[in-house]
Amino acid sequence: MLIRQLSTIKSETVTSYGSTKTNIQWLISKEQGAPRFAMRLFTLESGANIGIHNHPEEHEIYIVQGECDLISEDGTRRRVQATDSIYVPPNEKHGYENVGSEVLKFICVIPILKK
Amino acid sequence: MLIRQLSTIKSETVTSYGSTKTNIQWLISKEQGAPRFAMRLFTLESGANIGIHNHPEEHEIYIVQGECDLISEDGTRRRVQATDSIYVPPNEKHGYENVGSEVLKFICVIPILKK
Repeated sequence: MLIRQLSTIKSETVTSYGSTKTNIQWLISKEQGAPRFAMRLFTLESGANIGIHNHPEEHEIYIVQGECDLISEDGTRRRVQATDSIYVPPNEKHGYENVGSEVLKFICVIPILKK
Repeated sequence: MLIRQLSTIKSETVTSYGSTKTNIQWLISKEQGAPRFAMRLFTLESGANIGIHNHPEEHEIYIVQGECDLISEDGTRRRVQATDSIYVPPNEKHGYENVGSEVLKFICVIPILKK
């Protein structure tokens, strides 16, 4: 078993999709020996956003702290908050905006797809 | 996108492996259309345990709240706490005991293996 403390895991700024004030930490992935899926922690400051985008990887998300708007392809916004879980199917467009005053943290798991 | 509120998700008592005072909620799984892996939330009351066991499914875990002892096959205990992440490889024996006074909550993701 491998135990990783969050403070030891590199925090990287997310810049793709026009994202702002957003960081990612790869908690468990191929580097830790995971064969099939990767677990990441996203941290979005108040006012942060991750621009609308899509990809073949589905998302399974659990919101640990804070709240945000989840934005669909047509611009529809749905408010989600801590303890909510979210499933984003493969290829479906999605974006996020931290509309709250609190820092938003969510776990997001994606498959490790063979290239 | 599918959003699920935790209060709407059935909480089931875990009885396998001699477990006590432990509940599971299946947040996202095949029933929600997930093709490859399932996200569950475990809740362990103070003093709860999940007995040592193993299975072909690896675990990717994130501790949301509380602390516990993670127990290896040889009985070694390692204390883990909120914000720690844990990787348990396929077939490795593992168990948990909530040694704290607080309720323990962790996210645990497993593959959906073809039978």
